[in-house]
Parts: sequence; C-alpha cells; structure tokens
Amino acid sequence: MTRMLEAQNGQITEEIRAAAKLENMDAEQFREKVAQGHITIVRNSKRSITPLIIGEGTSIKVNANIGTSSSQEDLSQELEKVRLCEKYGAHALMDLSTSGDLAAIRKKIMDTTSLALGTVPLYEMAFRAQEKKKSVLDLTADEMFAVIEDHCAQGVDFLTLHCGVTKQTVQRFKEVKRLGGATSRGGTIIMEWIHHNKEESPLYAQYDRLLDILAKYDVAISLGDAFRPGATSDATDRAQIEELSILGELVDRARKRGVGSFVEGPGHVPLNQIVTNIQIQKRLCRNAPFYVLGPLTTDTSLGHDHISGAIGGALAGMAGVDFLCYVTPAEHLRLPSLDDVKEGVIASKIAAQSADLAKGVPAAIERDDAMTRAKIAFDWETIYKLSVDPEKARAYRESLPPSMKAEECCSMCGEFCAVKRSNEVLK
Amino acid sequence: MTRMLEAQNGQITEEIRAAAKLENMDAEQFREKVAQGHITIVRNSKRSITPLIIGEGTSIKVNANIGTSSSQEDLSQELEKVRLCEKYGAHALMDLSTSGDLAAIRKKIMDTTSLALGTVPLYEMAFRAQEKKKSVLDLTADEMFAVIEDHCAQGVDFLTLHCGVTKQTVQRFKEVKRLGGATSRGGTIIMEWIHHNKEESPLYAQYDRLLDILAKYDVAISLGDAFRPGATSDATDRAQIEELSILGELVDRARKRGVGSFVEGPGHVPLNQIVTNIQIQKRLCRNAPFYVLGPLTTDTSLGHDHISGAIGGALAGMAGVDFLCYVTPAEHLRLPSLDDVKEGVIASKIAAQSADLAKGVPAAIERDDAMTRAKIAFDWETIYKLSVDPEKARAYRESLPPSMKAEECCSMCGEFCAVKRSNEVLK
Repeated sequence: MTRMLEAQNGQITEEIRAAAKLENMDAEQFREKVAQGHITIVRNSKRSITPLIIGEGTSIKVNANIGTSSSQEDLSQELEKVRLCEKYGAHALMDLSTSGDLAAIRKKIMDTTSLALGTVPLYEMAFRAQEKKKSVLDLTADEMFAVIEDHCAQGVDFLTLHCGVTKQTVQRFKEVKRLGGATSRGGTIIMEWIHHNKEESPLYAQYDRLLDILAKYDVAISLGDAFRPGATSDATDRAQIEELSILGELVDRARKRGVGSFVEGPGHVPLNQIVTNIQIQKRLCRNAPFYVLGPLTTDTSLGHDHISGAIGGALAGMAGVDFLCYVTPAEHLRLPSLDDVKEGVIASKIAAQSADLAKGVPAAIERDDAMTRAKIAFDWETIYKLSVDPEKARAYRESLPPSMKAEECCSMCGEFCAVKRSNEVLK
Repeated sequence: MTRMLEAQNGQITEEIRAAAKLENMDAEQFREKVAQGHITIVRNSKRSITPLIIGEGTSIKVNANIGTSSSQEDLSQELEKVRLCEKYGAHALMDLSTSGDLAAIRKKIMDTTSLALGTVPLYEMAFRAQEKKKSVLDLTADEMFAVIEDHCAQGVDFLTLHCGVTKQTVQRFKEVKRLGGATSRGGTIIMEWIHHNKEESPLYAQYDRLLDILAKYDVAISLGDAFRPGATSDATDRAQIEELSILGELVDRARKRGVGSFVEGPGHVPLNQIVTNIQIQKRLCRNAPFYVLGPLTTDTSLGHDHISGAIGGALAGMAGVDFLCYVTPAEHLRLPSLDDVKEGVIASKIAAQSADLAKGVPAAIERDDAMTRAKIAFDWETIYKLSVDPEKARAYRESLPPSMKAEECCSMCGEFCAVKRSNEVLK
C-alpha cells in the first residue's frame, strides 16, 4: 500500500509525523493534504532517505540537475557536483545522464547522496534503442515500461514522464505556430514518436499500467511539460494550456491509484504572466504540487540565466510554486561546471528564501531576522553562517587590508557606517 | 531657465525631441510629462552628454556606484570600472568617493564618460570637515551649500540629498524601534546633525536656497531616503512612509521651481511588499520618477546580493519603478572589484529587461524575439550579440570539445536537441 493510500485511510505514519514537524505543520492536517495529493512525499519505498516534501503549506524546495553526456563522461566530476548541491542546500537531484553505463551511474549517485533522486527515463530509452541500432521512434511500449520499471526497482524516487503529449496536443502545437518551437528534450521525443507511429504514446494510452509500476515502489510521478514555452513570446499559449489540462486529468488518476504526483511547469515566461501561470496550474491540476523550470523572465540572459531564473522562481514561489528546478549560468550553452552548479543552487536558494519570506514561512522570517541581529551586533561569524554562501562572504571581507578588518563595521562604509551612527541617535 | 520650466512653457526642444524618439514616445506627450515632472531629464546644463531619461513611459534605466575609499584609493581602477559600466550598458554612474582629491576624481570621471553622473555631496562635506579637524556635526549651512554649489558648478548631473530627514522623521524613527536601524550613510549623518544641533537640517529648512542652486545649473535632485529599511523585517514602516510623505512635498516644491526631481526608495523589502511600495511612492510623490536601491528580497544573500537585488528590481520595475541602482556581490562586505561591478550591472540589466518586457516596451519584446529567432536558426554570432554578456556566452560554448562545437545545436542537449526534433514534427 502506498503512503498516499495509507494517508487516505487516515493513518498518520512516523514519516508524516516527522515531515509535519519539520514543516511546522499539524500532523493531522499534513496527513489530509497527503491524502488529497496537495502535498507529495517523494521517496522510493526501497530507499531509506529523508523524503523530499513538496506542496501546500511547506517551504519551497530546490532541485539541481546533474549527469553525464557524450562531452562530459567523467563521473567523478558529477559526484563532486552532488556534494556541492548538498553543501549549498539543494533538496533533490535529477540525474539526466545520457552517456556511459546509466544504471551504474545512478547507483553511484544514490550511494553518494541521501537526497531524493529523480530521472527522465526517456533518455535511457533512447540510449538503449541506440545500442540496439534502432531508432527511439521504433521503441515498443514493453521496451519503454521495462526502462521505467528498472528505474523504480533500482530506487529512483521520482520520474519525469511526458504523459501529456497526445495526438491532440501535438496537433495544437502544430497549429499555434510558435516563434521558439518546443524545448523539452524528453517531450519532443514523444512528439516525434506519435508523429512517426500515428498512434497515442504508451505513456498516455497505457497510463494505468504506468501507475501500477509506480505504485509498486511508491515512486512519485513528475508530469513533464513537453509544450512548455522556450521563448517568452510563446508563453501561456494554447499548446501549453491544453497539455496542462490533460496533466490535471492525469493527476486525478494518479491520486485515485494512490500514486504521488506533481506537475512540471514553464520555462520561459514574462514576469507579468507568472502569477497567472501558477494560478491556472493550481486550478487545472487541483492543487497538485507545482515544479517550475526557472521560469526565465527574459531570453537574453545567456551566461547569467541563473539570475533570470531566480527572478522568475521567486515570483512563482510567492504565487504558490512548491519546487524550483535550478538554472545554472551554463544553461543554453553547455553542461554546467562545478562552479556553475554552485551558482545555480545558490540562485535558487535565494529565490526560495525570498518567496518563503514573502509567504510568511516562520523559519524564513527567523533566518532573515537572525541575520539582521548579527549585523547590528557586528557578529561576523554568525553573519557568515547565516549567509547563502558563507565561504564567499568570509573571503570577500577577508580580502580587506588588516586595518579595515579590525574595524567592527565593514569596509564598504568604513567611518560612515550607518549602523554605528544611527545607534548614536537611538541611544 | 531650466528645461522643466521650458517644458511648462510649451517648448519642445531638440533634447526633448531626441529623447522622445529614443523612448518611442510622441514629442508633445513627452514634453507634457517633463512639464509635470513625471519624466525627469538628467543633465547638468554645463555638460554636453546624452541625458539620462527616467520616468513614466520610458524604459528602465540602470545606475552603477563607483568611487574610492580609504581602503581603495586607486583611481585607475575606478576609471576601469567606468569603462565596464559603459560596456555592459549602465545608463548612469554615481561617484561615491570618500578618499583622495574628491574634486579631481569627479573631473577625471566626467572626462572619461559620457554617462550622467550623480554624487552624494554629504560625503565631501564630511571629508572637508575632517580636513578642518571639525566634526561633520558642526558643519554650518554655508559650508554645506558651498559643497553643493561646487558639485553643480563642476558639472555633476544629479545630487542625492537627504532633505526628508527632519526633527519629526527622526522622532518617528526613534519610536518605531527597528530591528535593523538605519542604513543610509548620508541620511544618518543628517540624523546625527539634527540630534546634535537640536534644529532642522539646512537641507530641509533652507530647501528653497538649495533649489535655487540646482536651478542655476539645471541639476536634478535625487531625494534620498534616509529611513529606508536595512532589513526585510523593517520594511514599509512608519519612519519610511513618513519620510516618503515629506519627500512628496519636496517634489511638489521642486516642480514649482522648475527643478527636475526623483525619489529614492528601499532598500530591503520582502517580495510581497514591493508592489505596495511602488504604488505608495507613486501616489505620495505624484508620479515622480522612482529610483530603487535593489530592493533586496532577503537579508541572507551575502556574497550574492546582486541576485536578490535583481529579484526585487525586476518586480519593482514591472510595478512602475523607473531607475534601478545596481547591487554588486560585494554589497555589505567590501567595495566592489572590477568583476563585482560587471556582475552588478549585468544583474540589473537582466532585471530591467525582464520588467520592460513585462510592461510591453517594444524594444524589449523585439530583443527577446530576435534572440529566439537566432536560437532557432542556430545563428550563434547573433545569439552572442543579443546576450547580456556576449563574451561569457561565447567563452562557455567555446569551452566545448571541437566535435561538439561543430554541431549546430548546443552541447547541453546534443543529439537530444528539442529544437531540431520539434522542427521535424512541424515540417
């Protein structure tokens, strides 16, 4: 029995009790939200990790993508990224590896981290097709489900699957004539599969079969958004919203089967459409947890997409998004380096803290206030500790000449320190 | 006669015609907004630069702060910062130097750049007091106004002056008992001056005298916000709003005297209070252009304050802010390095572009769309050119192995390129 079915039966498990405490919520209220599917607990029943908790009333969580590719096959670097993600406070990882022994890579990552792990099984489907010298477009339903079951059996905690790509949504996509086309890697494979085979994708046509596999391992489904806009000018169009509507139906079916679900979202979205995007998702998908990729608020921030991602993520978070996928400075250009991963996690953590603060999450308020108290007291060690990047904050201040470091206040204002002066007035 | 008085007399000057064209506005409509003070043209009548244009209906502009301090007296580095600010698209500079020959530094900066230049004369007042071995608190009105006139006579385009610090606002500040006190360097000097001298500051008591000096050189006044919150928990409190109300009265008086004005704003503000802050400023100050310092949406982003500043600046911009003061990664820690300046300008430019796009500014939409067209065409040279940081975008892609660079698409997705695949479906 999945934990969602247990919650629907009224059971308050130890896991629910612990999660509710962590989120500063009442356990019974928490159980109810899990039963409704408004909160999703993400943990494969085979893994003994602290679960990822996302949804209504919880603090915003951050995901980081890692993984090998044909241009970056060095697994040790990917494992170093895992450690960086943990160090800077990511709550989940997605392994998007497309090159090497994919199962062995996943095992190594799961052995390295206690963070929840997600995958996009389509990449391995494509990889296996390649090994068999066949096109990904000729994959059978059995071959697809075999990969999905392998991921579940191995312990993966959540799977991104683009189940909302149907004949109907592909047709809508063709009709809207976007400037930027589609940008979902997994989603476009399914689009092409439907286009090529002239039939519904097994991920949609055999969705109940998929749910049975997920339920067996209590794996959560992250309903991928194949038609997310890849350009601000394409945001919130009919292809995107039609798919979202179908994802809402699939959320309903997952809930009935007791499978935890959440919904992926855009993408590239102008700032003035972000709140609308969150509201329409929460309505069409009946308050399913929402997982956004950015959203980027401009297409022009190449090399600094983590910043436009943080702008979009913060506003989305305030409007109700539950889970932020990081964006690194390398987005659109190459796979991220170690530094890019660090910058990406930090940018998303700033967005999450800003949004939680705006929503009144007590832990977020307390953290900002503790920082202010430390600043007023010139307590630099506490200031560093509460910073999103303690090492950088320390290194910046320690780059000063010794005479300045000796001063209580920082070198930015020196003798003009406003804190000192206003304390004089307040005495 | 100042250009505001000319505009009030119905004159459409060449400057107005050129500015209106640049902003994609009708010249007569533009003149009217200048006459009302809803748009401020910032240029000292002694300087022949392209003016800084801020206010209603114009695109959002970005300011960068530079300047020496006792820990950083190397002027050549500051001039290098000027060049970086120009390169990455800042629209104005503020020279906040507090060490060295301040007049000579300003001259050198003005000789180097054609960007509008602002200063905070209080720093030089404090510096001159120090030279005379007296306290800044013993400065006379004549000494203060002498510094202000010197800045104007030298060609400075706008001055930040904390005229809203009065006995009444200081009293309110004492009563609100903030967690984070005050963080305006200039503002706290005036607070202390009032506290020490038990009388109104000359900047308020002799405001008409101040306006006469500014009018003589057609210098704009940036009404400083001494009581801006320095912590998210202090945002939008009575001290801040009371000062804003006084600043609104001072805007009215500046308009009557034909002096261009704009109003400085917070600071540290939780995301959910930003729109309110912009609306209350626009109302209390009768649509004066608004110039925000960030705002930072969390106090915990030390080392990465440019990111929380970009989050706050973008939302503020969408809500109507006209002018963003950059925040660098060095904020709260030290004076910015060259790299910090670059990162700060870029973060603010991303915020400005995101906000302009959300407001429907045609040039912003066209820039995002041109980028999308270039991406779809794999036209990398145009992609770099349209990026906020062409060199970094190019360097990232060129760090790839040659086999990957040869491909049309980027190495992030490689063979899984969604653009290529969706083009297949759309054929």
